[in-house]
Amino acid sequence: MHRVVILGSGFGGLHAAQALRRGPVDLTVVDRRNFHLFQPLLYQVATGSLSPGEICTPIRAILRKQKNARVLLGEATGLDAAGRRVILADGATSCDTLRYDTLIVATGAQNFYFGNASWQEIAPGLKSIEDATAMRHKILYAFEAAERDPDPTRRRAWLTFVIVGAGPTGVELAGALAEIARDTLRHDFRAIHPEESRILLLEGSPHVLPSYPEKLSMDAEQSLIKLGVLPRTNVRVTAIDQASVTLDSGERIETRTVLWAAGVAPSGFGKVLASEFLPAALLDKQGHVMVSPDLTVPGHPEIFVIGDLAHFEQDGKAIPGVAPVAMQEGRYAAEAILDRLRGVTRPPFHYHDKGSLAVIGRAAGVADLGRLKFGGMLAWLAWLFIHLMYLVQFRNRLIVFIRWGFQYVSFDRGARLITGEDQPPQN
Amino acid sequence: MHRVVILGSGFGGLHAAQALRRGPVDLTVVDRRNFHLFQPLLYQVATGSLSPGEICTPIRAILRKQKNARVLLGEATGLDAAGRRVILADGATSCDTLRYDTLIVATGAQNFYFGNASWQEIAPGLKSIEDATAMRHKILYAFEAAERDPDPTRRRAWLTFVIVGAGPTGVELAGALAEIARDTLRHDFRAIHPEESRILLLEGSPHVLPSYPEKLSMDAEQSLIKLGVLPRTNVRVTAIDQASVTLDSGERIETRTVLWAAGVAPSGFGKVLASEFLPAALLDKQGHVMVSPDLTVPGHPEIFVIGDLAHFEQDGKAIPGVAPVAMQEGRYAAEAILDRLRGVTRPPFHYHDKGSLAVIGRAAGVADLGRLKFGGMLAWLAWLFIHLMYLVQFRNRLIVFIRWGFQYVSFDRGARLITGEDQPPQN
Repeated sequence: MHRVVILGSGFGGLHAAQALRRGPVDLTVVDRRNFHLFQPLLYQVATGSLSPGEICTPIRAILRKQKNARVLLGEATGLDAAGRRVILADGATSCDTLRYDTLIVATGAQNFYFGNASWQEIAPGLKSIEDATAMRHKILYAFEAAERDPDPTRRRAWLTFVIVGAGPTGVELAGALAEIARDTLRHDFRAIHPEESRILLLEGSPHVLPSYPEKLSMDAEQSLIKLGVLPRTNVRVTAIDQASVTLDSGERIETRTVLWAAGVAPSGFGKVLASEFLPAALLDKQGHVMVSPDLTVPGHPEIFVIGDLAHFEQDGKAIPGVAPVAMQEGRYAAEAILDRLRGVTRPPFHYHDKGSLAVIGRAAGVADLGRLKFGGMLAWLAWLFIHLMYLVQFRNRLIVFIRWGFQYVSFDRGARLITGEDQPPQN
Repeated sequence: MHRVVILGSGFGGLHAAQALRRGPVDLTVVDRRNFHLFQPLLYQVATGSLSPGEICTPIRAILRKQKNARVLLGEATGLDAAGRRVILADGATSCDTLRYDTLIVATGAQNFYFGNASWQEIAPGLKSIEDATAMRHKILYAFEAAERDPDPTRRRAWLTFVIVGAGPTGVELAGALAEIARDTLRHDFRAIHPEESRILLLEGSPHVLPSYPEKLSMDAEQSLIKLGVLPRTNVRVTAIDQASVTLDSGERIETRTVLWAAGVAPSGFGKVLASEFLPAALLDKQGHVMVSPDLTVPGHPEIFVIGDLAHFEQDGKAIPGVAPVAMQEGRYAAEAILDRLRGVTRPPFHYHDKGSLAVIGRAAGVADLGRLKFGGMLAWLAWLFIHLMYLVQFRNRLIVFIRWGFQYVSFDRGARLITGEDQPPQN
């Protein structure tokens, strides 16, 4: 039986695995985590709307009925391309290599701080479920500390929130944060007024949502301002420490809470591939793997690279690192494998861009669906519907629907927990 | 205005705060955490049935409409009884002391390992939400490691689960664990058969549920055996390490997963009280504060001690450390304060024991409601009903109800996530 190994169970890996459901293959899915994470809703965990369990689904539960699939918890750290083996991190057990006939690498991306490693400790990003609970911890703790602190200057710093990066994640985070301050926590404190919080959204380019059409970016900016967010465009962060953020203009913003939405970089497995194959020209400047038109590594048709790790050009530019790309690439890789087993060559991959959506707080959003571009309530409803439909499990879909319903009516958020070991934080 | 400070927002503290709702008092509730934890359902988080957010409710949300109450996130570490001040841990802020006219200490209990500090690292207990996620991590990871491990001896150790202590927590944990192995995970693995797991429930006394009538203990034992749990009574643990548990008979059980349900000890604030007042005779052998018939510290009518930290005798023995006791004590303390403000002396506290309930897996349980003692499905239904009703928020009640419904029908558990920093564990 043809052995397929998939590294990673994000949108790319999972869709590849499911598309191989009826194929004559022996499939192994390897992931460091035991669950599939619905990343587009991570910011809702970070802002206390949803619980981690509501956007995570155990991989085993998803693939339970797929008899040709097995799941292994483990981290791939090496590759023996000649021997067609993946080397797993030395865990508790000795099953440390995995043979494949075809390999699909879908290990995704990680937070990227432009080489400023020290920022990572201070400004949590938003890639893992632990990132999201760390961010939730920081946000909620800031209000608690402000309530306790009698000093007005420090209190103002506690109530200043800086979000770096105004892509969809930064914009959605800013909108949710504004809602927390204005509505959710409004009557919860006695010494402070949460609605007096300052929420700064910093962006290096001239507009928020820079990848969107300018008209929609302007709409989004207006919606943010209406919610009380202060967008600051054309600014760059030059320093971050426990008490402040410094901009390229020299301006220093006193803040205790910096949230990172400015960048991600491809996962480390790109380097493993590059070092195995050389020349390093296999990787682009950011570290994405440059793939052939059929999503394989040049010269290695048995290795597919998909999702956020891959660099694939279409119409002269790289397609973006978003969930729909990863899903389509995952399905393509699976079908290409099945075609080959039938002796057929599949035509090159083509990404069908169905558009982009982002929400801003309650009842506002922007949608760019190709020829159809719109904002406001309609975009928000479209976003709600699509995100609910893509949640993997019916149970989670129902529970998220209930949570959102409650939240919409009551302005309350159910998952406002400060959890974690470092409790309470000292910064 | 009479200043009341409540330390802790468990069942005792929260019920005291709510009973002071309409009183002419200025109330401050201090807790290290920003949420009230519904401890009786912690084992359901540990076994993947519920998410942390579903059994935790932000204290601020509960007390939002109580205008005489404020909430402070902080840890009380000292007491100046003469100055009537509580000293808070040096956190981020300088608001470090808190004046009171009446103090209610409701800081609860913590895991207790009978002086074997090293056991704590290996065998997580079940008092905090972090305990529960650590336990969930350990349980789920054991199955994952067994799936990866080709060595049959090690695999058997991964699939051996030892629960120390067969009180209600241990029994409920064992029942849930048996269900996970027999039903939830049954079709999830390819190399192992989760239903072949061994689940050992160790108890020092002659019966499981030693505080229950013997007939019910026997019923519970039979229900556990039917689920595949191996109860071992009259045994004591003498050593625990990463690979095994040793019993007083000298027997050594190879296991990678030891779960602690054997004991709790009063929180550290008991010692703070004792050192402030001396003589240490204020504390009983385990460290509980010996309280007067009105739940106050002898000689200090302005300090109430309630809940798991208090030692209160009725009919010649100490009443147990359970939620109904804490709730009744909390309400009593609040009413005693209000009576005093009216110039009335309240009669001594009396605990009304409404009985005990424990469930064993799905559709079995035992109930000891005074004259009414019964087991089976009826006890299980009573348990479900009571626990749902006592969940603080309607939203959580609804979501927990849906989760339980899904789980009952599908045998699946929605919150089977291995999360946390130490990912994956090396032991």
